[in-house]
Amino acid sequence: VNEKRVQRLAVVGTGLIGASVGLAAKRSGVEQVRGYDLDQEALDVALRRRAIDAAAPDLPSTVADSELVVVATPVGVSPALVAASLEATGRPRTVTDVGSTKGGICTALARQARFVGGHPLCGAETRGPGMARADMFEHATWFLTPLAATEPESYGLVESFVSLLGARPVAIDPDVHDRLVALTSHLPHALANLVLSQVGSTRVAGHDPLEAAAGGSLRDLARIAGANPQVWSEIFLENADAIAASLAGLRERLEELEAALVAKDAAFLRASIEEAARHRRRLSDASAPSRPAPRE
Amino acid sequence: VNEKRVQRLAVVGTGLIGASVGLAAKRSGVEQVRGYDLDQEALDVALRRRAIDAAAPDLPSTVADSELVVVATPVGVSPALVAASLEATGRPRTVTDVGSTKGGICTALARQARFVGGHPLCGAETRGPGMARADMFEHATWFLTPLAATEPESYGLVESFVSLLGARPVAIDPDVHDRLVALTSHLPHALANLVLSQVGSTRVAGHDPLEAAAGGSLRDLARIAGANPQVWSEIFLENADAIAASLAGLRERLEELEAALVAKDAAFLRASIEEAARHRRRLSDASAPSRPAPRE
Repeated sequence: VNEKRVQRLAVVGTGLIGASVGLAAKRSGVEQVRGYDLDQEALDVALRRRAIDAAAPDLPSTVADSELVVVATPVGVSPALVAASLEATGRPRTVTDVGSTKGGICTALARQARFVGGHPLCGAETRGPGMARADMFEHATWFLTPLAATEPESYGLVESFVSLLGARPVAIDPDVHDRLVALTSHLPHALANLVLSQVGSTRVAGHDPLEAAAGGSLRDLARIAGANPQVWSEIFLENADAIAASLAGLRERLEELEAALVAKDAAFLRASIEEAARHRRRLSDASAPSRPAPRE
Repeated sequence: VNEKRVQRLAVVGTGLIGASVGLAAKRSGVEQVRGYDLDQEALDVALRRRAIDAAAPDLPSTVADSELVVVATPVGVSPALVAASLEATGRPRTVTDVGSTKGGICTALARQARFVGGHPLCGAETRGPGMARADMFEHATWFLTPLAATEPESYGLVESFVSLLGARPVAIDPDVHDRLVALTSHLPHALANLVLSQVGSTRVAGHDPLEAAAGGSLRDLARIAGANPQVWSEIFLENADAIAASLAGLRERLEELEAALVAKDAAFLRASIEEAARHRRRLSDASAPSRPAPRE
């Protein structure tokens, strides 16, 4: 047995991501997965789906004999739960999280040698352990944010664990991470919300645009709109400055497009679509799962 | 045989929509579908896929013996092709189009009693006859824009034809149509383009956000970005005023969100996501195919 391999895992927060970590870990041969959630129903569903082997009554008993703890809660409460997981009695353990923002938690826990920040990009817009899947992390980028104080052994443990789940671990600076996801995730979510709210609150000569939109292209954009208000309002708050900066950049582009439309500037309109088409092709190339994650 | 039923159909423009009309018509029992396209390859593919029975060498011979002509070309050239289809010698015929904007063509052809403007909402973002499908219009809203001069017989013919293809015909004023689709289709497309171009042209500490975004939520938004630059730049031009107005409305919402982020206004952020979530649920309800189109 590889010494670095996790045998006893604890999952704090058995929602969609936490339960998927449990399912993926069980499938990969992790011996024991213990789960904890304040929401008894989330815990029951995770147990019923065998995402966890046992539900623990409190945080200390959840983590006590685990080599690795995955904290999968809304970002607002994660730092406190990571700290509590590190401090609980029992064997020494490594703790990671799955939050969508890394600056805040990495600043708060910068001296914790056995904490490794993490963030899997799995594009999951649903919620709850009922939608959890063992293959949630296949070929997904899983950002890890080791700091100067991080113990190499803890980093290695988390890195091999996320590889075991099928993901591709990518080390990144926490602030660079936050600026990246402000663009790639938070900006699209924010815009999808704005567009859907504008369309949905407008009436055109008595017509409700959402009724008329059934089957239209608004639905692609809407899929990421209105996702879990608690989770996302915390993400927006945590990463407010980077998101505001990306919105400001978008506002400038929007003003240019408005001016081109008013001026009936055909060349500008065409060039702007062609620019988007080029980036879209690059995104398709990048999204192709050509580099499957290494397996043991 | 129902007198109103189309037996001989002509399709002018055998791209994605034209070829799908042909496939759906053949499946529904239309006897003869003739096709015409300036692009010989599009014509060949449509023929090979049996979306059309015969390729005609020019417009007059395509439409000569048809009861119905469907003009499925980029919106910039549609009015001239509709007019030419109406004026060609042979039996009297009804002509419809499938363009995404209706104000321009309906103004240009307001006195043509046998023209009925049309626009199927099928959310197809691909292009070319190779992607055509016989079920493209199942349960889709198909807008029709009859005017004062429109012959009831022509309107009835088009209405029963699109029902035959599985769509739900909805009569609407051309300008109301254009303001509606500015919100439900053109605004999402424009925004998807802007977001993708902004994200794709930014570098964060050397990282290309599109590389990092593989698997992320940007992809949902990107699906409608960069769609067919020729088709979409014409649509944007045709409907420039309504799209500019919807962008201006969005810009106001964007400024509000930016201010809330800068002020770390948690209550505003949460309320704005909850608003989007409400509209998203309404859209899901409207999108459910609970009202299948009437069949013969």
